[in-house]
Parts: sequence; structure tokens; C-alpha cells
Amino acid sequence: MASIFTKIINREIPAQIVAEDDNYIAFLDIMPLVKGHVLVVPKQETDYIFDLEDEVLAGLYVFAKKVAKAIDKSVKCTRVGVAVIGLEVPHVHVHLVPLNTMDDINFTRPKLKLEEEEMKKIATTIKDNL
Amino acid sequence: MASIFTKIINREIPAQIVAEDDNYIAFLDIMPLVKGHVLVVPKQETDYIFDLEDEVLAGLYVFAKKVAKAIDKSVKCTRVGVAVIGLEVPHVHVHLVPLNTMDDINFTRPKLKLEEEEMKKIATTIKDNL
Repeated sequence: MASIFTKIINREIPAQIVAEDDNYIAFLDIMPLVKGHVLVVPKQETDYIFDLEDEVLAGLYVFAKKVAKAIDKSVKCTRVGVAVIGLEVPHVHVHLVPLNTMDDINFTRPKLKLEEEEMKKIATTIKDNL
Repeated sequence: MASIFTKIINREIPAQIVAEDDNYIAFLDIMPLVKGHVLVVPKQETDYIFDLEDEVLAGLYVFAKKVAKAIDKSVKCTRVGVAVIGLEVPHVHVHLVPLNTMDDINFTRPKLKLEEEEMKKIATTIKDNL
């Protein structure tokens, strides 16, 4: 069965997409740790990041860098943190999390629930800064 | 002033090194979240991961993949989690953290303090599995 992220890639599920090319896509996490929390996903549906071929893995982070630079310009933060956990959705996803403190990237914290209008505004700002 | 990681690279400070090539080095975190927690560092001393050139960034993760595969074989875990925070030492370092639960990669948790003998044993096992 297609992962939830493949469904986003195929436009079967809506998402606030901020960047996309032939191999990768980036969109807002619907349960963000902080405002501006983005997921970067290879279109190839692989469960474990270290099972990606070198080329796909390398390209994933080069793509993520472009998105992170746009987040840096869009959200008030010290820098963008990066994490891959992979204990939930079995499709590689890199978390880009605008950080001010260490606790901003603590995945055991309660997640935010933002209004659709606010999510849209954040996504538009990031897209405009790409 | 040279970062603490540059001092490790230059052998001015001891560390349990598990892998090294011309551009990258990997060694045990001296304050691990869990046993087998490794730091992967580009020898080029750059503060922010997204200031690395594309090629150096890409190579960092391809190098980290080799190390992560060895950690997978060495430590009982579901998979290896990956994180870059960067609020402390101003020299890029990728955390490779053997995960069983989400809390294993919570950087606000108290760190472990392992005996030197145990650190050495873990490092040797990872090296042997490279």
C-alpha cells in the first residue's frame, strides 16, 4: 500500500508543499514541533534512510539544504535542525525544524496544531524565499 | 581557535575513533544518549551544516551511511536515527543514535557516562563491523 507520503506526492492527500523536483518533495509537517517544521521526502518509497542508494541519499540532503535556507529566511530561528527518526511512517523523511532551543527538536513533546490559514501562510513564505 | 572536533582530528584530544577518511571522521560521543551514539564530522571546520558546499554535505551523509550500517550490526536497535542540532559545538556534527524508542534521540535527556573500557569495546565492535 502506498505510504501517506506517496499519497501526498500523488496529490491524493492534500499538503502544504513548499518545494518539489523529479526526485524529492518538501511540505509542512501537519503536526509540527514548531512553526515552519518541514518534511523532506524522496519520491522513491524506501523505509530506512540508510537503505537509500548513495546518490539518492546525497541528493536528499542537497535538496534539503535549499529548503532549509528558505526556512532560515522565513521563520525566526537560530538555525534549522535536521533529524531522521523513522519509527512511525515507513517512508524516509528528513525533519527540518527551526530551532531556538534544544527542546524545539524533542520529538516526545506535544505537537502544535495550527489553523489551515496559518499553515498556508507559512508555506507561502517559505516558497517565496526559495 | 580550533574546535574540540578539530582537536580530535589532529589527535590533540583523545577519542574513540571508529572511521576516518580524507574528508570525514566518526567517533563515539563522550556523552552518549545511548550506547553506540556516534558523531560524524567533516574535517572542514564549518559551524552550520547548511553552509557546507553541496559536495561536502552529500559526502558527509554517504560517509555516515557506512558508519550507521556498522552501528546497526553492533548495537541492539530498531534502526539508527540521525540528527544535527548545532546549538553547542560550532563545528558540524551528525549524531548517529541507535534507536529503540523516540525518547532515545531526545537531546534534553540526561546523558550516559560510560567507563572508558566499555567505550573502547563499543568502538572496536563498530570498527570491526565496518
